[in-house]
Amino acid sequence: MPRYALAVEYDGTEYDGWQSQAVGITLQQSLQKALSVVANSAIVVNCAGRTDAGVHASGQVVHFDSPVERSARAWMLGTNSNLPDSMAVHWAGQLADDFHARYSALAREYCYSLLNRQARPGLSARTLAWERKPLDVPAMQEAANSLIGQQDFTSFRTVACQAKRPWRRLDRLDIERDGKVLNFRVQANAFLHHMVRNLVGSLLVVGRGEQKPEWIRAVLSAKDRSLAGATAPAGGLVFIGPKYPAAAGLPEPFCAAPDLELWDPNSGWPEEFGIGGA
Amino acid sequence: MPRYALAVEYDGTEYDGWQSQAVGITLQQSLQKALSVVANSAIVVNCAGRTDAGVHASGQVVHFDSPVERSARAWMLGTNSNLPDSMAVHWAGQLADDFHARYSALAREYCYSLLNRQARPGLSARTLAWERKPLDVPAMQEAANSLIGQQDFTSFRTVACQAKRPWRRLDRLDIERDGKVLNFRVQANAFLHHMVRNLVGSLLVVGRGEQKPEWIRAVLSAKDRSLAGATAPAGGLVFIGPKYPAAAGLPEPFCAAPDLELWDPNSGWPEEFGIGGA
Repeated sequence: MPRYALAVEYDGTEYDGWQSQAVGITLQQSLQKALSVVANSAIVVNCAGRTDAGVHASGQVVHFDSPVERSARAWMLGTNSNLPDSMAVHWAGQLADDFHARYSALAREYCYSLLNRQARPGLSARTLAWERKPLDVPAMQEAANSLIGQQDFTSFRTVACQAKRPWRRLDRLDIERDGKVLNFRVQANAFLHHMVRNLVGSLLVVGRGEQKPEWIRAVLSAKDRSLAGATAPAGGLVFIGPKYPAAAGLPEPFCAAPDLELWDPNSGWPEEFGIGGA
Repeated sequence: MPRYALAVEYDGTEYDGWQSQAVGITLQQSLQKALSVVANSAIVVNCAGRTDAGVHASGQVVHFDSPVERSARAWMLGTNSNLPDSMAVHWAGQLADDFHARYSALAREYCYSLLNRQARPGLSARTLAWERKPLDVPAMQEAANSLIGQQDFTSFRTVACQAKRPWRRLDRLDIERDGKVLNFRVQANAFLHHMVRNLVGSLLVVGRGEQKPEWIRAVLSAKDRSLAGATAPAGGLVFIGPKYPAAAGLPEPFCAAPDLELWDPNSGWPEEFGIGGA
């Protein structure tokens, strides 16, 4: 049965997150409903990263199997004509049977955007968080740099997080200024529940001058969620997308750098990093 | 009586345009209502540029007079706490009595943003227009360049336009690519009704290859609206803001280049431009 993949973007403001559930309207349900019309049969999708309520995506990737043979263009345009305005498929393709939107991903990238000025946003308020106090970007970047690498991110995951292991490989956390907007660009092999928003919330503590940059490393070492900053609001977060091996056949923005390898946190904690447990 | 000015941004999607009217919800009415709460008396504002239904602004400027003495900060924050989420004041100041948001402006700047790809936008769909056919940006820029200067823009104004004269001084029309988004940045002394959207709509005719770049100059010369392209949708348009003499005292983004002079289209049509009529 052919395996298809889609790249999807959405404004998550009015959804109860990605994953199908009994109550509320989810992005997965909306997409499956539209796909099922095109396929004329029930479709279930697997996604690269389950986004929370209110979180957006520019490059969510899903895969699904369907006995129905459709061109990539037909999947894309047919699905879009059955989706609400707040969601659109912008790439479709048939991939190898062993491609898996979640398990084939070598890394995920997110961008958190925040308006830093006295007045709240009046335009793009759906996709911009807001901080009224002037932020010290070099101090935040210094703090961010100290988190790069393979770490135990217990302090930055929500108590409700269901991941078996708290270890993740943080590849990048760059804070870029665009006028009065700060963009936090984050890449990791994968993220724990609320991890990006908790990292941003803790960097804001440093940016407002309430803590020195080295504080964040102490928070990391303590493995205690209660020491980190508040979870930043969902609306500022956009899932830019997963990164796959180039051989998987997705378009360029979804291709990982050639040296990026699949990291299995269950394979044991690398000894050279002394922080993590067992 | 002190004269105050405000810089305002808004998402115009759910408004019936700027100007107060008997039916519908307008931005002017929302702002006046919020200001009147802060002033504890009725406030009427004058704006730099009346935007149409569905058009946004990042830097609309208004002025008003009020006997109530409030700090700039109090006007800004007090007004914002009485405005809906889709509108925010981001600068306030007391200016000289002869400052006029509309008549003191030497120029206005707009940005029209358009997503150029096969699939419609799913994120930021409120502020992005969409063109599915690949656009030839150099051809559009060549056409745009031929419109710069003082011209009779009859071909690019709506029949309902109430301006007395069809002449405007177009300072700039630059098309900048940002990934799959094209930003049309336009500055003129002032704009006729629908002028930006009609210019963009006509440039799209060139961009899709349906006409050569020199066609747009022929459309201009014909002074016939029916020859130009369709009016581009309102949602892609953002009023970046007016430009005033630096001495007026507004913050830097609202200050005109020193050589920009107030142009009075009623002073007569400059003889060196042969296109326009008396």
